[in-house]
Amino acid sequence: MKRSQIALAIACALSAPLFAAAPAADEPIEVIRPPQNINLGMVELGKKLYFDPRLSKSGFISCNSCHNLSMGGTDNIPTSIGDKWQQGPINAPTVLNSSLNVAQFWDGRAADLKAQAGGPIANPGEMGFTHTLAVNVLESIPGYVREFAQVFGSGKIDIEQVTSAIAEFEKTLVTPNSRFDQWLLGKADALTAQEQVGYQLFKSSGCVACHNGAAVGGNSFQKMGVVEPYKATSPAEGRSAVTGQDIDRFSFKVPTLRNVEMTYPYFHDGAANTLTEAVDIMGRLQLGRTFNAEENASIVAFLKTLTGDQPSFTLPILAPSSDSTPRPKPF
Amino acid sequence: MKRSQIALAIACALSAPLFAAAPAADEPIEVIRPPQNINLGMVELGKKLYFDPRLSKSGFISCNSCHNLSMGGTDNIPTSIGDKWQQGPINAPTVLNSSLNVAQFWDGRAADLKAQAGGPIANPGEMGFTHTLAVNVLESIPGYVREFAQVFGSGKIDIEQVTSAIAEFEKTLVTPNSRFDQWLLGKADALTAQEQVGYQLFKSSGCVACHNGAAVGGNSFQKMGVVEPYKATSPAEGRSAVTGQDIDRFSFKVPTLRNVEMTYPYFHDGAANTLTEAVDIMGRLQLGRTFNAEENASIVAFLKTLTGDQPSFTLPILAPSSDSTPRPKPF
Repeated sequence: MKRSQIALAIACALSAPLFAAAPAADEPIEVIRPPQNINLGMVELGKKLYFDPRLSKSGFISCNSCHNLSMGGTDNIPTSIGDKWQQGPINAPTVLNSSLNVAQFWDGRAADLKAQAGGPIANPGEMGFTHTLAVNVLESIPGYVREFAQVFGSGKIDIEQVTSAIAEFEKTLVTPNSRFDQWLLGKADALTAQEQVGYQLFKSSGCVACHNGAAVGGNSFQKMGVVEPYKATSPAEGRSAVTGQDIDRFSFKVPTLRNVEMTYPYFHDGAANTLTEAVDIMGRLQLGRTFNAEENASIVAFLKTLTGDQPSFTLPILAPSSDSTPRPKPF
Repeated sequence: MKRSQIALAIACALSAPLFAAAPAADEPIEVIRPPQNINLGMVELGKKLYFDPRLSKSGFISCNSCHNLSMGGTDNIPTSIGDKWQQGPINAPTVLNSSLNVAQFWDGRAADLKAQAGGPIANPGEMGFTHTLAVNVLESIPGYVREFAQVFGSGKIDIEQVTSAIAEFEKTLVTPNSRFDQWLLGKADALTAQEQVGYQLFKSSGCVACHNGAAVGGNSFQKMGVVEPYKATSPAEGRSAVTGQDIDRFSFKVPTLRNVEMTYPYFHDGAANTLTEAVDIMGRLQLGRTFNAEENASIVAFLKTLTGDQPSFTLPILAPSSDSTPRPKPF
């Protein structure tokens, strides 16, 4: 770097606070960005599949039933309702910003969104169907046959195409433009004083050690109950089910805190109803720190600034079944 | 009318066939028209309520669960799934164009959409909630409190407001611009030859006696099984449950045939899976007429021209619950 460039760089650095739009590059939480390299035809097809309950045995449950895009990409109940009202074993994680996760499901057993999308369809406790039957249904619906051919250029529908399209739609479910992101991008008054205090506490007390990056989480597995054990209401043992290693017992994917105001109840068992409760438990169990009421309220206030623009799209209209479409079995 | 006006009127009448856009005023089926006199604020609020499963005990079932606007305003299963997967007693009628119905429900027990909207919320076999609990939930959600105040100018939410808003949204669920309507409005090539043959058969064989008007039905109650008795799979007895009159046994509201391609399965018990089957049964039981395969196919082809523009709107985003919101009871 030449001397004149160095001088310019220093001048810019010193004057940075004057530039309202200068990004805060040194923060452990990054601005979340709209998706790129999206296959639009695949997205539109995936959106239909995401909303189509004909991918379930009953004809009643779609992806959107438990990952409801009207409600933060989740179902807002502790554990989900599956085929014949079976009680699910674990809290439905939000689909919002899930493309940023290191892996999918609480235990990370699916490498990516495509691998995840096939899971619930064939899970007897969730949509209760099989991949073969789901594809049979789609192949009997002329509207889908045309759209799959258009998108994939093949005359035959397969489950790989189905999960690819759903995953491509899910990649679009990113929530930019939260007040926190506006602040990161230099809009100093986007956060109140209390929210800024909450963010400083979030960093100084150690929350940020796990909840960092663009999704404020989602990028590592951590033990639930580090300082004190967590008394779970669910038998889920987490990552050890995937690795077979005892050291991974009760290790779960760190959930994203983006839109956390909307994704209650909290934790893998959905046992915490409110952010106040979740922050208190996390502080004590993970950090050995009891936040007083004011500190807790500040952190909660900060967390609520992470609510971004929710995905906005027209409700898809699904092509009708044909006479040859196998009928659902709801009862 | 002056002589010159009469001459003009005659000239116009004689030359009508030359005007492709002249409406076919003498047809028993009328063009369906977009809704008028709509309160837009109430519609937007009602749309949110329509999609909000927090109006159910479980937090899982919304109006849209059984009257799914991605699927012709119905659930495409014979009878609906209610709280704890209870099997409903009757097929969910489409919500599309339901503002045109003479009354609501198959037995007409609700006078209008507003009276209907409160039914499923408090029905133990459907959403399983109570009006009081539903209002309590809404009153605990700041986003709703603000929107109800804005729309109704009152500081307090009540069930009348809730059902009024849902009904106002439902009034917008009209499906204009079907190919049949385009034909009615003078676009002669909007229907194929087979579809026109089907329509003529629909009229000449008597279907149109009950399925007429803008909704092609919905405007009268008729006995199911006039010439031959209908062997129902459901115990529903229809209109007699409302009137107490034995003569009304097995009398049901004539369903609209608008979008009938999308609203399978058919009849109050959802026993007919296909239009072919439904047309055959209706012909024999109501009209004493057995349509041959070609006649049946023509009528079915005509019926499929009644699919109109489906309601197009952005999926609503629901305001999150607050710490004081009573939590749903899914299990």
